Amino acid sequence: MVTLGKNERIDDLFDTNLKIIQSPDVFAFSLDAVLLAKFVYVPIQKGSLVDLCTGNGAIPFMLTTRTKGHITGIEIQPRLYEMAKRSAALNGLERQVSFLCDDVKTAPEKLGKHQYDIVTCNPPYFPKHQARDRNLNEHLAIARHEIFITLEDVIAVSSQLLKQKGKAAFVHRPDRLMDIMMYMRKHRLEPKRVQFVYPKKGKEANILLIEGTKDGKEGLKILPPVYVYDEQGHYTEDVLEYERR
Amino acid sequence: MVTLGKNERIDDLFDTNLKIIQSPDVFAFSLDAVLLAKFVYVPIQKGSLVDLCTGNGAIPFMLTTRTKGHITGIEIQPRLYEMAKRSAALNGLERQVSFLCDDVKTAPEKLGKHQYDIVTCNPPYFPKHQARDRNLNEHLAIARHEIFITLEDVIAVSSQLLKQKGKAAFVHRPDRLMDIMMYMRKHRLEPKRVQFVYPKKGKEANILLIEGTKDGKEGLKILPPVYVYDEQGHYTEDVLEYERR
Repeated sequence: MVTLGKNERIDDLFDTNLKIIQSPDVFAFSLDAVLLAKFVYVPIQKGSLVDLCTGNGAIPFMLTTRTKGHITGIEIQPRLYEMAKRSAALNGLERQVSFLCDDVKTAPEKLGKHQYDIVTCNPPYFPKHQARDRNLNEHLAIARHEIFITLEDVIAVSSQLLKQKGKAAFVHRPDRLMDIMMYMRKHRLEPKRVQFVYPKKGKEANILLIEGTKDGKEGLKILPPVYVYDEQGHYTEDVLEYERR
Repeated sequence: MVTLGKNERIDDLFDTNLKIIQSPDVFAFSLDAVLLAKFVYVPIQKGSLVDLCTGNGAIPFMLTTRTKGHITGIEIQPRLYEMAKRSAALNGLERQVSFLCDDVKTAPEKLGKHQYDIVTCNPPYFPKHQARDRNLNEHLAIARHEIFITLEDVIAVSSQLLKQKGKAAFVHRPDRLMDIMMYMRKHRLEPKRVQFVYPKKGKEANILLIEGTKDGKEGLKILPPVYVYDEQGHYTEDVLEYERR
């Protein structure tokens, strides 16, 4: 049994068999989170993973379909943290997935430095100043805008959490490609795999997936493109062929 | 009438109606040149264009199918320069296309600074030291290896040749993405358009096309992917649908 708050509902977690508590007023996971959880390299049998800016926990829950390792999600907003905790209970995943309600910048201190195999993050995409213009409520503004954390903070924290040769994977907008690569190299996360996601054939990419290795060697690969929708407007196999454990 | 040297032959210039003099011992144009000539923005009615490291002139000749502007090709190797000159005569393009036999690094001094609308370059891709290991003849070694010019030199020269808001377009290997973007920004060529070329579906990209604007605003677009071969091993429409004047 799980208690739902005001305007909350239980949704399917994309094409997994999992459920997730969401609220349109507060937060709902996006395709970007689904794509990142599919893109990132994960150890299958064990390992320690962290998801920064986890929101209602969509990425940690999806990663449980690909790894038996332990996953910690960090979220600064208590309202979202509470939703994520209840979703963990709803799915019987309290042992494999835990959550911390805190500022992501405290993660290396709270969770320990150089101890993690994998870090993922779907960070706020938009500059802080745009949040005011758009008249968003506070929950959505914090999730989408760089109010409490910047892109460089996310990358610096990821690097501190990772073991040598650990991997960090991020999802962002393609127009930030150059910044993200420069910050990654600056913080010793050598970019190794990039994948661009296109809404459909003939359109420009609108999502960037990138993974780097802590103190890795140079050598970037550009993976085959992912298309989200086919000509009929249905999800393609690129999106639906989600690895299951 | 045109004179052919030893081991030279006249080939079709891809799917244009043009011809080009080549020699397997010395130089033959590659698909990379075709893709760059197709990718770069060009003014249609007039303008001044420069192609650096032009080899036997494939890019200038292909650009004549897209622009009425004047194109100058620069090549350091006299043997290739001579071939390019004879190909210009063969195609009756001596008025629209001219060639300079010199070190590309002298181009801003010889051709004038800040006077060009468009610069293209298909530069040597490989580090200098690899040329010795591969036991190439001198002509091929110079065309493919950074013996007389480095990637950063090419980008610095391009920037010096361009007017404000002029565009430079390059083709290279995807693993140099980060270097090329950093050098472009350092030399005031803001990266604006990137396109990745994949040999076929399901494979990693093996060619990078990138264009920047001199003193342009930030805002990178990732264009739809280009596939070279279809499932039957034939060229795709992506490659064949070559804009004609």
